[in-house]
Amino acid sequence: MRPEDVLEREGIALPETHPVVGNYVLCVRSGSLVFVSGHGPFVHGKPGFVGKVGTDLSIEEGKRAAEIVMLNILTSLKGELGELARISRFVKLLVLVNSGPDFTQHPAVANGATDLLVKVFGDRGRPARSAVGAPSLPLNIAVEIEAVVEVGS
Amino acid sequence: MRPEDVLEREGIALPETHPVVGNYVLCVRSGSLVFVSGHGPFVHGKPGFVGKVGTDLSIEEGKRAAEIVMLNILTSLKGELGELARISRFVKLLVLVNSGPDFTQHPAVANGATDLLVKVFGDRGRPARSAVGAPSLPLNIAVEIEAVVEVGS
Amino acid sequence: MRPEDVLEREGIALPETHPVVGNYVLCVRSGSLVFVSGHGPFVHGKPGFVGKVGTDLSIEEGKRAAEIVMLNILTSLKGELGELARISRFVKLLVLVNSGPDFTQHPAVANGATDLLVKVFGDRGRPARSAVGAPSLPLNIAVEIEAVVEVGS
Repeated sequence: MRPEDVLEREGIALPETHPVVGNYVLCVRSGSLVFVSGHGPFVHGKPGFVGKVGTDLSIEEGKRAAEIVMLNILTSLKGELGELARISRFVKLLVLVNSGPDFTQHPAVANGATDLLVKVFGDRGRPARSAVGAPSLPLNIAVEIEAVVEVGS
Repeated sequence: MRPEDVLEREGIALPETHPVVGNYVLCVRSGSLVFVSGHGPFVHGKPGFVGKVGTDLSIEEGKRAAEIVMLNILTSLKGELGELARISRFVKLLVLVNSGPDFTQHPAVANGATDLLVKVFGDRGRPARSAVGAPSLPLNIAVEIEAVVEVGS
Repeated sequence: MRPEDVLEREGIALPETHPVVGNYVLCVRSGSLVFVSGHGPFVHGKPGFVGKVGTDLSIEEGKRAAEIVMLNILTSLKGELGELARISRFVKLLVLVNSGPDFTQHPAVANGATDLLVKVFGDRGRPARSAVGAPSLPLNIAVEIEAVVEVGS
């Protein structure tokens, strides 16, 4: 099943194009790899989840934020590639969780992103991943994710 | 025009070689990609901008620090490749801004790096990019940037 | 000498397999590159070093934590590749040090990882590297490291 069809079956709509909040582009392809810029949890062009996970936001809200970040990344990849089926593998994610010094549950938050990927892409949606804290993020977004994906020949 | 000529026209001198402050190298090439270590805003071998952006330093100073970090990266790439014209694309930057928990203007700081790249390299200087906060950085530098660049065949 | 033989000669045992604390995998290979997930200083499946370097832990303890993280990465790479000798180059490390706002000695901590690599792999163990602070890390681990390595043909 095409990834777009899985999303439709699950009742998940891809968000509109992620804003570019500086002098850069959302994706750069080099060979068979696409490097994806850090994305945020944008909804209708505005940050949908702001603040620090563990204090301003619950773990569940952080996880939902990570899922929405990943949907924004899928929109960017669809814009870059035309069809999500051209992605042969999600290679690597760096998940940054806006959090204070006592936060320890970054993996639970990051699962919001990778659970979605596995649902939509199966095993090729299960990447290598790092989940870490950030003391602050642009526009006070709760989660920022950057990605490397492999495109099939 | 060669990137070195654009820099000269703009009156911008490349800094001397960035110090290696540990057991690593400044660049590693693998295939058509060069992975560049985290660099700081070194001037004559010493950190030119130290402290936290938004408290110790203004946004404008942070932006200037990011520009100087990028000049240091260009020096390293010139050392690795001989000629900057061999760079076919700036693929990806990770920009870490030394900042406190309330900082939100990481993209404005990161533009100091990418504005320079676009000035010198045109569209192939506009990379994918992540801009995030760091609670602390080596030697208390204000900005650290790592890069992935593509080399033409 | 095989990397495994160097480790044995030095009296260093590889740890058991690093736990996967979420929905991801430890390594993904794409072409000649292997992208390695963020790893922690696990010993017998439990975090061996927790807390912030510079306050809860000394620099020496942080350096030792980084070394143990790298041993965990070697275990993962051996699991992925069968033989460590298949690694032609350690390309890039991102070293995140759990630390407060005043910490400045990230490179000394990161050397715990790269000193080990150079001991075991020689010059091909000396990567590009970024060493930065993180305000918090999963399970309060002291150091997290992600890696990109190149595999020989």
